[in-house]
Amino acid sequence: MISVADNLRITIPAIARAVENKDPAPVQKLVAQCRDAGAHAIDINSGPLSRYPKDKMRFLVETVRAVTDLPLVLDTSNPDAMAAGLAYSGGTVIINGISLEPEKLSRILPLALSHDCDVIGYLLDADGHVPADTESRMEAAVALFGECQAAGLSPDRLIVDPVVAPLSWPDGNHQNIAILDVVRTLPDLLGFPVRTIAGLSNLTTGAPDNSYRRIHQQAFLPMLAAAGASMILMNALDPGLMTMARACEKIRNQSIFSWE
Amino acid sequence: MISVADNLRITIPAIARAVENKDPAPVQKLVAQCRDAGAHAIDINSGPLSRYPKDKMRFLVETVRAVTDLPLVLDTSNPDAMAAGLAYSGGTVIINGISLEPEKLSRILPLALSHDCDVIGYLLDADGHVPADTESRMEAAVALFGECQAAGLSPDRLIVDPVVAPLSWPDGNHQNIAILDVVRTLPDLLGFPVRTIAGLSNLTTGAPDNSYRRIHQQAFLPMLAAAGASMILMNALDPGLMTMARACEKIRNQSIFSWE
Repeated sequence: MISVADNLRITIPAIARAVENKDPAPVQKLVAQCRDAGAHAIDINSGPLSRYPKDKMRFLVETVRAVTDLPLVLDTSNPDAMAAGLAYSGGTVIINGISLEPEKLSRILPLALSHDCDVIGYLLDADGHVPADTESRMEAAVALFGECQAAGLSPDRLIVDPVVAPLSWPDGNHQNIAILDVVRTLPDLLGFPVRTIAGLSNLTTGAPDNSYRRIHQQAFLPMLAAAGASMILMNALDPGLMTMARACEKIRNQSIFSWE
Repeated sequence: MISVADNLRITIPAIARAVENKDPAPVQKLVAQCRDAGAHAIDINSGPLSRYPKDKMRFLVETVRAVTDLPLVLDTSNPDAMAAGLAYSGGTVIINGISLEPEKLSRILPLALSHDCDVIGYLLDADGHVPADTESRMEAAVALFGECQAAGLSPDRLIVDPVVAPLSWPDGNHQNIAILDVVRTLPDLLGFPVRTIAGLSNLTTGAPDNSYRRIHQQAFLPMLAAAGASMILMNALDPGLMTMARACEKIRNQSIFSWE
């Protein structure tokens, strides 16, 4: 199980300022901490980067790459930023991500093909909404694999993200039980070892406090691991969570992962 | 999910001495701690009680009952001790337990019938050995339900224990993944809401240290919860584990359990 640090986010004011001022220090300090905590990959959540997207994404990927050889997960909805990230990041890179939304299929999916890299696909409907039940999620997964195939991308390039629901939603827990079903059954349904990723921090969006956040994430992580999730997007700077990820791996007894 | 404290064990020297000397204080102190920690039931692991089984089990259940109204789980292989426990415990009581071993079927199972109480059934073969795979466990479960039915005990009185394997066994992790499958699929296989229990402490038998013990139990607990386990036999005095059990319940969103 691959732990992807979700810590580098443009929504952190110090990171937003660093990107604005082209100051590598705050970005590199944060990424080095995630690397040293044992993260297997680094998500770069740049947001849409509406102004100077290419320039800012190039700064971000080059700045991060200077302190780590880990795979980088480029997390932006802006196709121009994504293209720049792919051009300058070097090493292994993953596109985050596509969905059945038409713009994602027309402008982001082709980048996965031209760069021959993995791409995360969210189980959302064409309007970007979260499906209501397991069946709709399965249909979205089948449709996403169909879109990849139609575009000429090998299906094993797609990493499915079933979109963890906040527990604070009225039906958040039911949604998350459905998500565990999806992660568990997709490989059987589609007949090949479908890879999956889940964003653990989503679980506690709107949580009352850090203790609530920490303990519920620590409880849901083994549930995802037992369901067979390949990757977890998570707070790499929560030592309890990282310890839990390693314990799950011991119980699942997967061999040490490698990036080919 | 019902947490059953596994803390009261005759293998603890102070408890063995207390039983020998009919000294209620050490037993009651321990049970009160488990009760105050939020345990939903108390396992009384008296061992076989080869000398004075009736007398000692009566002392144990009366001593425990004096400090709590929680359900008591009578954990002995000695039919005489079991019968005495059932006669004197009062309140809700669960027999722990039976298996396909002939002596368990001939001498313990009838006690569940005569006292009309729940009974835990271990998925072991007739020789008391742990089955090798999921299929053998399913067969053992079907056979156990068959024995209950033949004896006239309602199948909803049987709580299945798939026998958690120590991670230190060469194939311990594979066995435990199989156990999660069993817990998850038994209700579908048998066509009714089969209740299950798992002994979490078994996971780390032979563990190198307490930190290893704690973290791996904390990781496996949510896996069991997500698989649908009804009851967990566990260390009620590990606050991290009890917090984890409550977080799992929040994610599963089961309503507060009641004993009928």
